[in-house]
Amino acid sequence: MKKAGILGGGQLGRMLLQAAANYPVETYVMENDPNCPSAHLCHHFITGNITNFDDVYAFGKQVDVLTIEIESVNVEALEKLEAEGLAIYPRPSALRIIRDKIEQKNFYQSNSIPTSAFMITENLDALKELSHFLPAVHKLAKGGYDGKGVQMIRSKDDFHKGFDAPAVLEKKVFIQKEIALIIAIAENGERAIYPPVDMVFDQQLHLLSHQLCPAELAEKIFWKAEAIALRVVKELKSPGIFAIELFADIDGNVLVNEIAPRVHNSGHHTIEAAFSSQFDMLWRIMLQYPLGNTDSIQSSAIVNIIGEEGHNGDAVYQGLKEVLAMDNVFVHIYGKKQTKPGRKMGHVTILSNEKQELLHKANQIKHLLKVVTAE
Amino acid sequence: MKKAGILGGGQLGRMLLQAAANYPVETYVMENDPNCPSAHLCHHFITGNITNFDDVYAFGKQVDVLTIEIESVNVEALEKLEAEGLAIYPRPSALRIIRDKIEQKNFYQSNSIPTSAFMITENLDALKELSHFLPAVHKLAKGGYDGKGVQMIRSKDDFHKGFDAPAVLEKKVFIQKEIALIIAIAENGERAIYPPVDMVFDQQLHLLSHQLCPAELAEKIFWKAEAIALRVVKELKSPGIFAIELFADIDGNVLVNEIAPRVHNSGHHTIEAAFSSQFDMLWRIMLQYPLGNTDSIQSSAIVNIIGEEGHNGDAVYQGLKEVLAMDNVFVHIYGKKQTKPGRKMGHVTILSNEKQELLHKANQIKHLLKVVTAE
Repeated sequence: MKKAGILGGGQLGRMLLQAAANYPVETYVMENDPNCPSAHLCHHFITGNITNFDDVYAFGKQVDVLTIEIESVNVEALEKLEAEGLAIYPRPSALRIIRDKIEQKNFYQSNSIPTSAFMITENLDALKELSHFLPAVHKLAKGGYDGKGVQMIRSKDDFHKGFDAPAVLEKKVFIQKEIALIIAIAENGERAIYPPVDMVFDQQLHLLSHQLCPAELAEKIFWKAEAIALRVVKELKSPGIFAIELFADIDGNVLVNEIAPRVHNSGHHTIEAAFSSQFDMLWRIMLQYPLGNTDSIQSSAIVNIIGEEGHNGDAVYQGLKEVLAMDNVFVHIYGKKQTKPGRKMGHVTILSNEKQELLHKANQIKHLLKVVTAE
Repeated sequence: MKKAGILGGGQLGRMLLQAAANYPVETYVMENDPNCPSAHLCHHFITGNITNFDDVYAFGKQVDVLTIEIESVNVEALEKLEAEGLAIYPRPSALRIIRDKIEQKNFYQSNSIPTSAFMITENLDALKELSHFLPAVHKLAKGGYDGKGVQMIRSKDDFHKGFDAPAVLEKKVFIQKEIALIIAIAENGERAIYPPVDMVFDQQLHLLSHQLCPAELAEKIFWKAEAIALRVVKELKSPGIFAIELFADIDGNVLVNEIAPRVHNSGHHTIEAAFSSQFDMLWRIMLQYPLGNTDSIQSSAIVNIIGEEGHNGDAVYQGLKEVLAMDNVFVHIYGKKQTKPGRKMGHVTILSNEKQELLHKANQIKHLLKVVTAE
């Protein structure tokens, strides 16, 4: 049996391990929290720091094949492991581009991949000279995650919110739609692309409201999005699973927003809604099997389960019974003991070929299901 | 989080644990082999003997809710645990009936549930007085499993093959079809029934060739089968998952063959082919959630992956890449290191609403996929 390692032990690792149990593979996970969502679902759990060179290197020496479930890993150790012959998905070179927003933007530009206009700012003083570029979004080059390290700069008055460290200032895009595409690339270059996903935002809360798959797109937008996403992965020159997040702006342009070189939140519906899920697909890539079928079994929606405001502590799931009483609804609780406001605690997938039913159930679930703490 | 225990650590436990990771539950498994298919997928693995009173009792005292993945467990310990308040699925009383073929047959008879005619034989001498009852099948009352403990007695010449221990002699049924039905029963008595499955046997090899769901049944047979299965679970008076195996004979009678008080091989297609799988359903029952939807997403077939004749040792899967290259085919390898002739090593589920496609792919898979040992 091949030995496969995962750096990071969160929910993505958890779902990877659920899928791994279909295949002959021995699984290793490294993460600093021995109570993380993946710890009990692998053959070998190693407590370690995924940003530390020695920890990552020692971990990599135990396995035949390695992947990540989060970008913030020690790339230098991965490069050494790769040089010594380890198969790593994604390639460290792709990770190096993606983990730094300045590198990411330069990559788009040098490969003629459409993306929002941007300026690089080395520090806060540099930002303050760019008032002609506003409104814009200031993004920390490294270490941003889940909304952290991102600030909207509407006018000069917002400059103090910017980052006094290397960052990218992206000109505000007037967004019509946000779309995500998941693409699988095998070692031999074979590619498979999942149907696009609509990331629907709540305009008031500035939070993802729900996802819909397939996205409702004008044909022209659809073809542009797919062509751009395929171009991105071609230029990244790496096998693996990639999530390409795109904006369709109000003028019909399609722009790359971000890339994730791994299984991704925007692909969780594939567990039930696609013949081969993104998690199944990554195992097929790592174990050198043929790619699976990305076709949709049914249309689907996803609602994230997020820690409620004002609740910090042991998680309790309100409304779970009501949601589980709904037909064709699939609950995934990530097994995190502690909730905090905004923390991703799980997701719910809804299957139906009726869009109204998807939306109706998504709304019901958002109102019913709350992650709180015990009284 | 509720603490849930599983007695037995085989493939059924493995698939239960894959499903458990969707829910807030802490999992415990007991089995004597620390390399069993379930050992690495639970929060807590306990090495112990599931037929030993003390081991089962001590295990049960650690959990809030308990289930089994094999019938041969210590029922006396379960009865003591139940008397002390533990919720056990299935109830020990149902297990007591099912684990002994004499009790099982008496249960059918006393509840007017149609089953093949039978005689009870205390020993081989008793069998030899029943030549008027032949052809018949001799089944050991206790401990039979997967074809062991079962002998066809065609004529007096076969008497020496019979069992010199308490057993049941069942009059041979002239079988038109073998059918299986999976039923879920919640604590509150709510029931959900999955579409029936055709168990198609290879007449030459006397082995299951493949399963098809839904079974192709005359309407009258379908209704009889469902009514009988529901009557069985009503009289068993136990929540849980039950597989009811039935014969439809050449005269159109429907007879109960066997009951399994647990998730069952005949229900593995439900992982991909039903909205709520049998494994998902058992967690819903144990965690007191509403039952799921048993509807089929698509029609399906299952082919078992069985250890090849003449191969004993470390398992190697021939033809796996070819099978994984087929669309809408789902491979489940159970992670058993050692293969031996006839051992269940995995299964493959095929989804399609075209029966010809299901049969064609099932045949292809049977020819392509072999479990052998390395040279």
